[in-house]
Amino acid sequence: MLQKKIINDLKKIVGKSNVLTGREDLASYSYDGTATQVHEPDVVVFPTTAQEISDILKLANDERVPVTPRGAGTNVSGGSIPIKGGIVLCTTKMNKILEINKANLLAIVEPGVVLQDFNLTLAQEGLFFPPDPQSFLGCTMGGVVSENAGGPYCVKYGVTKQYVLGLEVVLADGHIMKIGGLTPKNRTGYELCMLFTGAEGTLGVISKITVRLLPMPPATKTMMAVFDKADVAVEAISHILASGVVPSKIEFVDNFVIRRIEETTPMGLPLEAKVLLLLQADGSPTAVEADTQQILDLLKKHGAQEARAAKDDAEAAMFWKARSAGFAAVFGAAHTVLAEDVAVPRDKLSEFVRRLDEISEKSGFFIQYLGHAGDGNLHPSIFTDIRNKEEFARAEETMAEIFEAAMKVGGVLSGEHGIGLEKQRFLKRAMDPRAIDIMKGIKKILDPNNIINPGKIWEEATT
Amino acid sequence: MLQKKIINDLKKIVGKSNVLTGREDLASYSYDGTATQVHEPDVVVFPTTAQEISDILKLANDERVPVTPRGAGTNVSGGSIPIKGGIVLCTTKMNKILEINKANLLAIVEPGVVLQDFNLTLAQEGLFFPPDPQSFLGCTMGGVVSENAGGPYCVKYGVTKQYVLGLEVVLADGHIMKIGGLTPKNRTGYELCMLFTGAEGTLGVISKITVRLLPMPPATKTMMAVFDKADVAVEAISHILASGVVPSKIEFVDNFVIRRIEETTPMGLPLEAKVLLLLQADGSPTAVEADTQQILDLLKKHGAQEARAAKDDAEAAMFWKARSAGFAAVFGAAHTVLAEDVAVPRDKLSEFVRRLDEISEKSGFFIQYLGHAGDGNLHPSIFTDIRNKEEFARAEETMAEIFEAAMKVGGVLSGEHGIGLEKQRFLKRAMDPRAIDIMKGIKKILDPNNIINPGKIWEEATT
Repeated sequence: MLQKKIINDLKKIVGKSNVLTGREDLASYSYDGTATQVHEPDVVVFPTTAQEISDILKLANDERVPVTPRGAGTNVSGGSIPIKGGIVLCTTKMNKILEINKANLLAIVEPGVVLQDFNLTLAQEGLFFPPDPQSFLGCTMGGVVSENAGGPYCVKYGVTKQYVLGLEVVLADGHIMKIGGLTPKNRTGYELCMLFTGAEGTLGVISKITVRLLPMPPATKTMMAVFDKADVAVEAISHILASGVVPSKIEFVDNFVIRRIEETTPMGLPLEAKVLLLLQADGSPTAVEADTQQILDLLKKHGAQEARAAKDDAEAAMFWKARSAGFAAVFGAAHTVLAEDVAVPRDKLSEFVRRLDEISEKSGFFIQYLGHAGDGNLHPSIFTDIRNKEEFARAEETMAEIFEAAMKVGGVLSGEHGIGLEKQRFLKRAMDPRAIDIMKGIKKILDPNNIINPGKIWEEATT
Repeated sequence: MLQKKIINDLKKIVGKSNVLTGREDLASYSYDGTATQVHEPDVVVFPTTAQEISDILKLANDERVPVTPRGAGTNVSGGSIPIKGGIVLCTTKMNKILEINKANLLAIVEPGVVLQDFNLTLAQEGLFFPPDPQSFLGCTMGGVVSENAGGPYCVKYGVTKQYVLGLEVVLADGHIMKIGGLTPKNRTGYELCMLFTGAEGTLGVISKITVRLLPMPPATKTMMAVFDKADVAVEAISHILASGVVPSKIEFVDNFVIRRIEETTPMGLPLEAKVLLLLQADGSPTAVEADTQQILDLLKKHGAQEARAAKDDAEAAMFWKARSAGFAAVFGAAHTVLAEDVAVPRDKLSEFVRRLDEISEKSGFFIQYLGHAGDGNLHPSIFTDIRNKEEFARAEETMAEIFEAAMKVGGVLSGEHGIGLEKQRFLKRAMDPRAIDIMKGIKKILDPNNIINPGKIWEEATT
């Protein structure tokens, strides 16, 4: 338990109304989007300025109190769970879009800006920030940067790190540091912005973000394709990409999700489809027409039973709504859903999905998967119940086999979600131990007392 | 002078023919593309494998011998000059393209692969690696990554860091470390690949590089526009970008360069043009037609005296040849050319070029500039003679004023060239001192004995 004095000092910094210590409040901030981990903080604070973040960190650093930065808590690897208790520093009240500059194609935002709010505002200016994690309705820009978020658009537009130009970061001792800048080219020293991007909030608290934007593509076209085999579907994707056309989205939905969606919110999806690929082309209207034709031809040539463009905007919207509903459909399917996000080289996807079938058969667990097939990034899920210890342990072991299978074909432990708490025990297998030591060394430079989001990414030495 | 024993050990590692110690050899490796710095190494070695690099570094680390990694030596901030003597580790014999994978849109190369060779090979597959520094004919991929190289294409396609997926790096103690991977999405720990990208060869020696590729755009169109005022020309660029079209190149050439090119290799450039903008659109043929029309309309609307598409491929090639010849024209114009590469926010370019005129008038130095106007990245040059100490000192002070002017409008010290030796004394002004300390801390973790490219980026403490 935190000393009363520290709570009072926090109230002095951010004001009484921005400090929560009630039982329900602490419970509310004890979890994030991750299924398997829960831990209550001692206090939740809502700073509204970088200076307040600085004062909070100074206090926490002096008193050696853990601070877990948090936006909307949509993290799915446990990154925003205050596993060591202490302070949850919630940035949701720092939600101002400070600048949208069309000539410079950039925006400056506070960390608590919700991604969807940001994109709706940008759309009014004909602008667009591509990363689109499934949590876009709630997730905040601080989290988007800290997790180096991806999403469907990344197959064409890359991930968040490709858009970060500058950051203001508050360091563990309260120092407010500006790095990067406003220009797309900046060769002043090491790429420190890239170090904080994807650091899962372990190196400092991001208090301001400058991102590069793109003009909104003038036209888009949605396509769907039905396949009766998963490996054939993912091979078709390789053929599309090798042909020189880059769709803006290539998403994979399996039969489980199709049926589940149709049960809950019927949309008229093809119930019999083993696999549904959803694709989008974007660009100038004429380019989109040409790309759409090329993509549909390739889908048919490479094994699609059906491949067609959406009839109209309404059907296109329905397809993407179905895709978005996919995760909800999966997460509602069992008491505990172990959902992971391995990524494999695209040309190994077919081998990998065949291996998933083998693992499923051997383990007896049904393995559901959907995801960003265009990036080789799948989200395999196992349905289990954490209250059944024996089964849950077997489910975890089965997930470990999935990680192994991904890495065996040159893939990675996480395409989007980060390591957080959930994948720590696999990190040594996935990274050179020396690289882990380098990360620890960097953490030590920036946060010598280990107060910022402690206990994340790598396993702590057991003493 | 290096002990004879160390030279002999190096010969054992890489073979006698891969060790140079002759007087002319050492002189040849005493400089790079930078005008103002020269320092001879004691020995030049050419490893052909990561293991040889490892053995060289182990030896150097044990004996505390400085090692300066070097590719083609086209660096223009002094990054590849062996300022502390010791070993130049030249990667030019590690020049194999190891893999080009069309379905995965990636390539794996050794560090000594020449950028132009790489792109010619990719072109045969309809693929394309966008970063295109002016040194493309000679520069090597190790240098491209280590300097996080830019170029004209970056206005649309971003800089090198947007393309690095994975690296093999040899650390100071000889450990060969693999980081990153093959997938466009990879959230395994901190972005260590991004730390070595742009580190100017100070953190390790890159021995293998995996980069993301793009399909080659099926069509391109070159445009030219003539302006009678520089500030009007750069304002037109802001209007183009704010309109939602993103040209693949927007280059700025001034009258000095036009005249100079016409003197040496007459091409029929408009001699009277105060400013020539060269632009390119790329994409599908129809999109390119539409973009070209929109760009030309905007150029005319916003002050161009003339704006037109290149008549044919030959004229387009001539324009880009002129642009490429620009640097040569500038560098041949005086005994010593101080050429810098500040970048400013695009909407501040007009203010900045007016300030350049004022600085020129006040200092008495003619300030020539050309560059990547689409990125706000200009290369202002001052013509002087390093042998005339008084004038050279004034030229350096004038360049310092240009840096100040860039930073005053939110710009940066270097858009492309890095800090190296040339801009060290300005670093404190351009970066938070705390950020410099963090860089030093990271350097200390990776290279505790300071043997890899010592003396670069930040000024050493004077004792």
